[in-house]
Amino acid sequence: MLSDHDKWYIERITPELVQMSSIDGVLYSGKSKYQSVEVLENGCFGRCLVLDGKTQSAQSDEFIYHQSLVQPTMIAHPNPEKVFIAGGGEGATAREVLRHNTVKQVVMVDLDQEVVEICQKYLPEHHQGAFEDARLTLKFDDASAYLRDTDERFDVIVLDLSDPMDGGPAYLLYTLDFYTMVRDRLAPGGLMVTQSGPASLINHTEVFTAINYTLNQLFPTVAPYSAHIQSFGETWGFNVASLGPNPADLTPDDVDARLKQRGIGPMDFYDGVTNQSIFAMPAYLRAGIAAETRTITAENPLFIF
Amino acid sequence: MLSDHDKWYIERITPELVQMSSIDGVLYSGKSKYQSVEVLENGCFGRCLVLDGKTQSAQSDEFIYHQSLVQPTMIAHPNPEKVFIAGGGEGATAREVLRHNTVKQVVMVDLDQEVVEICQKYLPEHHQGAFEDARLTLKFDDASAYLRDTDERFDVIVLDLSDPMDGGPAYLLYTLDFYTMVRDRLAPGGLMVTQSGPASLINHTEVFTAINYTLNQLFPTVAPYSAHIQSFGETWGFNVASLGPNPADLTPDDVDARLKQRGIGPMDFYDGVTNQSIFAMPAYLRAGIAAETRTITAENPLFIF
Amino acid sequence: MLSDHDKWYIERITPELVQMSSIDGVLYSGKSKYQSVEVLENGCFGRCLVLDGKTQSAQSDEFIYHQSLVQPTMIAHPNPEKVFIAGGGEGATAREVLRHNTVKQVVMVDLDQEVVEICQKYLPEHHQGAFEDARLTLKFDDASAYLRDTDERFDVIVLDLSDPMDGGPAYLLYTLDFYTMVRDRLAPGGLMVTQSGPASLINHTEVFTAINYTLNQLFPTVAPYSAHIQSFGETWGFNVASLGPNPADLTPDDVDARLKQRGIGPMDFYDGVTNQSIFAMPAYLRAGIAAETRTITAENPLFIF
Amino acid sequence: MLSDHDKWYIERITPELVQMSSIDGVLYSGKSKYQSVEVLENGCFGRCLVLDGKTQSAQSDEFIYHQSLVQPTMIAHPNPEKVFIAGGGEGATAREVLRHNTVKQVVMVDLDQEVVEICQKYLPEHHQGAFEDARLTLKFDDASAYLRDTDERFDVIVLDLSDPMDGGPAYLLYTLDFYTMVRDRLAPGGLMVTQSGPASLINHTEVFTAINYTLNQLFPTVAPYSAHIQSFGETWGFNVASLGPNPADLTPDDVDARLKQRGIGPMDFYDGVTNQSIFAMPAYLRAGIAAETRTITAENPLFIF
Repeated sequence: MLSDHDKWYIERITPELVQMSSIDGVLYSGKSKYQSVEVLENGCFGRCLVLDGKTQSAQSDEFIYHQSLVQPTMIAHPNPEKVFIAGGGEGATAREVLRHNTVKQVVMVDLDQEVVEICQKYLPEHHQGAFEDARLTLKFDDASAYLRDTDERFDVIVLDLSDPMDGGPAYLLYTLDFYTMVRDRLAPGGLMVTQSGPASLINHTEVFTAINYTLNQLFPTVAPYSAHIQSFGETWGFNVASLGPNPADLTPDDVDARLKQRGIGPMDFYDGVTNQSIFAMPAYLRAGIAAETRTITAENPLFIF
Repeated sequence: MLSDHDKWYIERITPELVQMSSIDGVLYSGKSKYQSVEVLENGCFGRCLVLDGKTQSAQSDEFIYHQSLVQPTMIAHPNPEKVFIAGGGEGATAREVLRHNTVKQVVMVDLDQEVVEICQKYLPEHHQGAFEDARLTLKFDDASAYLRDTDERFDVIVLDLSDPMDGGPAYLLYTLDFYTMVRDRLAPGGLMVTQSGPASLINHTEVFTAINYTLNQLFPTVAPYSAHIQSFGETWGFNVASLGPNPADLTPDDVDARLKQRGIGPMDFYDGVTNQSIFAMPAYLRAGIAAETRTITAENPLFIF
Repeated sequence: MLSDHDKWYIERITPELVQMSSIDGVLYSGKSKYQSVEVLENGCFGRCLVLDGKTQSAQSDEFIYHQSLVQPTMIAHPNPEKVFIAGGGEGATAREVLRHNTVKQVVMVDLDQEVVEICQKYLPEHHQGAFEDARLTLKFDDASAYLRDTDERFDVIVLDLSDPMDGGPAYLLYTLDFYTMVRDRLAPGGLMVTQSGPASLINHTEVFTAINYTLNQLFPTVAPYSAHIQSFGETWGFNVASLGPNPADLTPDDVDARLKQRGIGPMDFYDGVTNQSIFAMPAYLRAGIAAETRTITAENPLFIF
Repeated sequence: MLSDHDKWYIERITPELVQMSSIDGVLYSGKSKYQSVEVLENGCFGRCLVLDGKTQSAQSDEFIYHQSLVQPTMIAHPNPEKVFIAGGGEGATAREVLRHNTVKQVVMVDLDQEVVEICQKYLPEHHQGAFEDARLTLKFDDASAYLRDTDERFDVIVLDLSDPMDGGPAYLLYTLDFYTMVRDRLAPGGLMVTQSGPASLINHTEVFTAINYTLNQLFPTVAPYSAHIQSFGETWGFNVASLGPNPADLTPDDVDARLKQRGIGPMDFYDGVTNQSIFAMPAYLRAGIAAETRTITAENPLFIF
């Protein structure tokens, strides 16, 4: 036994770094059509969704991840009515989008129906009823194919995809090619945001900085930002790309005023001060962004450990 | 083997959370008069000092820890000439203090001579010659006894002590009693700063918030802040307490101008933007600070896991 | 991930030795009146019963443990009709006893009804219907109290108890006092056998040799023996104490003839050759037995790590 | 920390089974021309030689491994004068051979001079002066090439090679082709013995049984046997192949008389009783041997995990 625990979840962060957290129970363990799927009751982080051996989100701190991913972009748009979500199987990304009283329609396209159904069953604290919201349309499809074929235009597009892994289903959705299509599906002044992999000191150049560089080929405004997600064992990176305003330019008071206006009460992570903090990255991350020169394409994709 | 590694350093963060990192070599392993001491060559974090099984600092990211600890306070003081350091055995805290061309005298008092000598020998990348600086006076003593008996007054006092652990040597240096004495050894307008334990979501109320509350009983201005230190497996907390200016009030331009004025070139972590970021903590940390009501005293000390 | 696995069961063998095996599922995890109880689907060892963080038996190699525990003693007795089992919650000890066509009555007394019911439900490969055998009487009681109060005498008594642990329920059942009562409940020529903790090089003097020494105070014949049980991470020890024949004296042919006579077909572990092997322990174990001088009593009990 | 230890050696036994033991120090860590080489001071097992991440032998229980490997074969031969050792870098195999006062010449051929020199320096408890014995001739060469080119004939040949691993240097020395040459280098009535990989329940069919089957194609007498080596996390397998006597046929008294006659005092593992025990394997190992049909050849080699 390690202390009082004998069942442990072990996740490799890098080949030289491993995080172990105790397991209280295994609620689900199986394989979907696309990936291995587990729902664990974790002694440290509560209920966790694990895909292909990587924690996607944990009950205790998913609010940090999902508010980081969604809120700066939603707040920056003056009137987000139509929102597209690629991925987001836990329903928590939709939950964050739907907080905004401006939102009229959310289209969420996730590849893996089994994962979504497992989340609906086992992760009620994640989705909190988002799947029942009448404004949400849920489709099981390849987000890339959906966007290619649609005539719709969106105010905000949120990319909440699993990491780009060699052999995985998502890596093509982290390329110039895909981002070009995403840009073209934005309404005038629209914004897209993508989770962008780890942004810790040791691995921020894996994909975080290259995603930033790639988006900079396509958008007039791109803002990188980061937040520490302990269940990931990492500071995590995000990039917002905009045809309109830049969330990093909002003052704390701007953000807090808009949150109030949108009918959003106090949240545990995000508000005006937090918005200021997450875009003000430490010098080594700014230096990493500045030094990056790689454009990710379908021909030259990047993979994460 | 885990991947290519078969030697691992395992550190418990909480009873339910453990961090493993690969070991390339054990440079030193022994016991000093006060504690177990190890210097490891870590595959992920470079050379690490480990006391009583807890990582004190790692070559790869000690700059984040030590610049966080030292720079906001040093920059906030308009003219820091006399500085006192309690602990700081690696020499890196002194290194950061000595960057400032205003500094005329640094008194560093560390309890454990053996640890300091081990650091001098094995951690050259940490101290980078700080021990040879003529402005530094190094004494091996109890910092509390030294401060009690001295007539000197300091512009800045930096508390770089090991965590308050039950049975450990440092826990009395995290109390109202000690902080009162520290305050009384500050020159007019002086500031003190203390490392304040973990400030992650899961454990920021262990000691971080209580140290803040305790300092608030004694100082007109107290500012909590935090930074992610991956080798600790944590976001780490700090509290600066001031009889004069508040580092959190400095604008990025203020900070950058002063750094230039003090003869300090670009650093990998700290600058004006970083200063803004570290004081702008996420909502849950601000809420934890706001909700705290515990005063730490010698009679009612707090201990860390 | 360690290879393809991310969920691991971790058991300390000694403070310096730990065994990790992958977990495929957690079938049961809870606390009974007496102990923590888990049934794990282990990737290496199949279904395992874990009590208070210690593997009691595993589907893949429980046959080694249970045939070691039961068969030498049963075979040595010329006509075992009445058998008493203390503990044995998985039902596998009863299964092994009931193989013998001489057996008319088995009384099994286990303290922990919840554990037995969990085993009945989750460990069908362990008990294989033994609980349904009409010759078996199952009682939930303290084995010591039951033996104290009974007028019955038994040909064979099998002690299949959890290890003697400080604060645990079983340590008094590893003492001179208890063994005296056990001896007095044996019919003329009867034998008792007890699992006796680890018998590896590193820990055979924990309790294995002392149990042997203690039984030697009470019985004319005591024979120690051992077998490697990989799911325990150990060679495991046993001691048989006899008022009649010594199982170690049986030739392989004797054993094989009796097995045939009792209607027992080929087993995966035990037969005449195996009987010879397990009693012929390596020199260091024989030396440990010879050097032992501790008698375990209720006043001076021994505990296992 | 796991208990009082924070540095751990982690070795995979199978993809589903891992052994962890505490590290007190790293005496050597590097790469030779052929393999990675480490000498660890292990908290459980003392000084250990680790090649390519696999424990080769440990101070605490190497006597079990080396006496198992060497003694049955040496004792079975009526007058072993000339002995060949392939591998055996720690010098402990030579040590065991040289105990026999009949021995006039030992030729030891190890591929890796660096490993041997590291063992000479760091593992004095292993070799115990064997390298200084005038009867020993040590050569650094491929054992296969040496045997091919030599005119010498040996009474006993001991193969103490690292496991057959894909890409490793030794796998061709576990084939019918090599064993044929070994046989042809034996003097009349000679014997060879080879370490034969794990012989635990879970993995005895990896190579142990196939080596046995392969040797049976070439020798009139082949005897498999096994012993539990806890530092390997396994029961380990060996096969002796003989042109003359079978060690398994010796009675305990035969063995003890010969040991005395050879001038060999009491050993911690091997004697007459132990000889009887190690050849009397449990039924599942005998069944595995009986069921094996694979001949290992250079064209169809076998590899261990």
